[in-house]
Amino acid sequence: MRTENLEYSLGEMHFRGHFAYDDHKQGRRPGVLVVHEAWGLGEHAEERAEGLADAGFAALAVDMYGGGRQASSSAEGLQWTKALRADVPTLRARIRAAFDALRARAEVDPERIAAIGYCFGGTTALELARSGASVRGVVSFHGGPTTEMPAGPGQISAKIVSITGADDPFIPIYQVTAFIEEMKRAQADAQVMVYTGVQHAFTNPRADERGIPGLAYNRLADERSWTTMMQFFAEIFA
Amino acid sequence: MRTENLEYSLGEMHFRGHFAYDDHKQGRRPGVLVVHEAWGLGEHAEERAEGLADAGFAALAVDMYGGGRQASSSAEGLQWTKALRADVPTLRARIRAAFDALRARAEVDPERIAAIGYCFGGTTALELARSGASVRGVVSFHGGPTTEMPAGPGQISAKIVSITGADDPFIPIYQVTAFIEEMKRAQADAQVMVYTGVQHAFTNPRADERGIPGLAYNRLADERSWTTMMQFFAEIFA
Repeated sequence: MRTENLEYSLGEMHFRGHFAYDDHKQGRRPGVLVVHEAWGLGEHAEERAEGLADAGFAALAVDMYGGGRQASSSAEGLQWTKALRADVPTLRARIRAAFDALRARAEVDPERIAAIGYCFGGTTALELARSGASVRGVVSFHGGPTTEMPAGPGQISAKIVSITGADDPFIPIYQVTAFIEEMKRAQADAQVMVYTGVQHAFTNPRADERGIPGLAYNRLADERSWTTMMQFFAEIFA
Repeated sequence: MRTENLEYSLGEMHFRGHFAYDDHKQGRRPGVLVVHEAWGLGEHAEERAEGLADAGFAALAVDMYGGGRQASSSAEGLQWTKALRADVPTLRARIRAAFDALRARAEVDPERIAAIGYCFGGTTALELARSGASVRGVVSFHGGPTTEMPAGPGQISAKIVSITGADDPFIPIYQVTAFIEEMKRAQADAQVMVYTGVQHAFTNPRADERGIPGLAYNRLADERSWTTMMQFFAEIFA
């Protein structure tokens, strides 16, 4: 498996993603965008991209803040995501830039792209779907599912999986039901999953280290959701 | 694969289930109860039991009405389920009798049992879990998730998967959120899934023939939910 920095830009802004793929494999393979949590591109998203490369995909862990910036504190990370979620066109333009960068790679089949993300990254992956991008599928792991710019009928071509914890204090159940209503109105193909006994950031083994109440790693939920994603990829990339 | 009638009883009442297993296979294997829709034990549940037998399980398509009775009309079937849902102790006793009959079979590992069900059968499988039966897992397909006797903390040992359609007029979203709340209070391990674009009875290829608005087969939802069940069985029977 090979990893490299992948630089891309949007206007004056430059981004540094982490690209991973199996360099012993020939030909174009499905590509997967991996979008980080609020804290910026770091170990968690990079490891997931590498796991996807091991599984035969070409994966780009994207950089949503530019220059590979990481928040110096939890407060700063939350502030950054809040600003981007309030400015949906900018958020969509940034993930679109990453999408275009991944599609341009010779290793990648540009017709077979998916996007996944964690927390803020899940939110971002859903925004890529709402933008109407020709992405086959999106998986949001503990991502806030609501938006300032809900999708209208027929706007979403991507199939969607959203997985959240029933004990996630940042994603109350009314947000999940609002998301289901939005997806119904949009006539989107969405699978919305809620796991009981599961808090926010359940896929991140380092979640507990932040000392934020409501964040907790959950190995079983992490494994189940990863398996669900793989099953979903088998369907959309068939 | 071998199929046979399996007779069992509860007090004065006699039941005729449809038992399926691979008779070329040696030793005790996991057992799965399959509970029919409102109309009584028929082709749909029997075919699913046979599919499970093909996959290496010993499966009993149960008879919840006694004598293998099938409703002569949709109205009669709905009346029967309404009566049983209003009398939860009787409903639980009947599925418990089937559970005991399956566990008593020499082909079955009595410590590795799951229950699945469709519509009313999904409701019934969930009641088996609420009763505290030592079943490893329960999967409810388009089953009404609410009950007259909600589970208290620690009462449920089975892991649970509930899958419903967002366009199912018989299972409005508030029932799904009420179920999530019940499972949270019960401290149960539940995975609650809602598929958009999917109506009631989505697993039954004959659903549309009944001419009831809101019932519709959906091949993709049928396949996804079956795959999800198989993945769940791999986890609980590991």
